[in-house]
Amino acid sequence: MCEISQDSRIEAVLAAIHERRSIRRFTAEPVSRDAVEAILDAGRWAPSGLNNQPWRFAVVWAGDPRQEGLAGCTKYAAMVREARVLIAVLLHRPTMYDTMKDHQSAGACIQNMLLAAHALGLGAVWLGQMTNQADKALEVLGLDLAEYAFMTVIAVGHPAGPGTSQRKSLAELVLGEF
Amino acid sequence: MCEISQDSRIEAVLAAIHERRSIRRFTAEPVSRDAVEAILDAGRWAPSGLNNQPWRFAVVWAGDPRQEGLAGCTKYAAMVREARVLIAVLLHRPTMYDTMKDHQSAGACIQNMLLAAHALGLGAVWLGQMTNQADKALEVLGLDLAEYAFMTVIAVGHPAGPGTSQRKSLAELVLGEF
Repeated sequence: MCEISQDSRIEAVLAAIHERRSIRRFTAEPVSRDAVEAILDAGRWAPSGLNNQPWRFAVVWAGDPRQEGLAGCTKYAAMVREARVLIAVLLHRPTMYDTMKDHQSAGACIQNMLLAAHALGLGAVWLGQMTNQADKALEVLGLDLAEYAFMTVIAVGHPAGPGTSQRKSLAELVLGEF
Repeated sequence: MCEISQDSRIEAVLAAIHERRSIRRFTAEPVSRDAVEAILDAGRWAPSGLNNQPWRFAVVWAGDPRQEGLAGCTKYAAMVREARVLIAVLLHRPTMYDTMKDHQSAGACIQNMLLAAHALGLGAVWLGQMTNQADKALEVLGLDLAEYAFMTVIAVGHPAGPGTSQRKSLAELVLGEF
C-alpha cells in the first residue's frame, strides 16, 4: 500500500474527465448494485441553483419489462437493450425554479454520473435523443408528466470496446485574450 | 514513487465529486495560467448532443476592468471582486441545436470545470444569479447578444476557507424500486 499523493489525485480526476467517452456497446456482464448506488450518489452531489436539487432518478435493470419499453422510445434501441442498467434522470417540476438553470443542473448531475461510471470501469452513454419521445418514456416509467420533466436516460454496462470522440481545441473555444 | 492503483483512481474521482463545494471567499494568491488552462481543458471535454460543443469561454483575470464590470452584474459582487480569475461560459448560438440539450451540455461543461478546479486545490463558485443580468454581462464582455447566450460566470481563486453544503438522501431522490 502507498499513500495517494496530491499529484496523483489531480491526475486521476483530470484523466477521468479527459478519457471518459460515450460507450454504446456493452458485454453481458451484470452491473453491481453497489456500482449503481455509487453512480447515483455522484449525481446527488451535483451543484444546483439555490441548492434546489431538482433531479430524481429511476433505475431500470436489464430484464425489467420497462427496458423494452424504453427501447421503443429511441432510435438507439440497441444500446437500451444491451445496457445492464438504465438510469432515467427526471426533474421534479414542483422543485424547479428556473428552467434554464434547472436544465444546466441536470447536465451537471448527469456528468457526475458519467464520470463516476467511467471511474468505476463501466461504460455509459447519455441518450439525449430519447427526449424526442419524452412523454412516452415517462409513461413507460409510470411517471406523471405534470410532476416530472424527462431529462435523459443513461445506459450503463461493462464496455464491449473503447469509445472514440474528438473535441475542438481551446484556441477555437476561448474568445479573446487568455 | 508508487504506482496509482485502480482503487485509488476510483476513490480520487468519487472524492472530488463528493467533496467539491461552492467556495465564495478567496485569498489574494494568484491563480496560475496553467491551472486556468487545465480548467478550460476539462470544460472542453464535456459531452454534448451530436458532439456540437456549443460552449465558448472568456477569461477575465483579476485587475482587468471587466472584473468590476461583472461585479456590477450580480448581487454577489464581493465574490467577483475577490476571485483571482473569472471564467465566463457562453453558448455559441449558431452552434446550438436544441435549447434544453445545449443548456444541459453547458451544465456538464461547468461541472467538469468545477471538478477540475477542486482537484487542483482551487475554489470556485458557479454564479448562476448573474443570468438575471445576462445582457449586461455580455456587454461587459464585449460579446454580441445575437451570437452568444450567457450561461454563467465561474469565480475562481485559492479558497479562504472550506465550503459547506448538504444534499438530499438517495432515498428521497430515487423513484420506485432500486
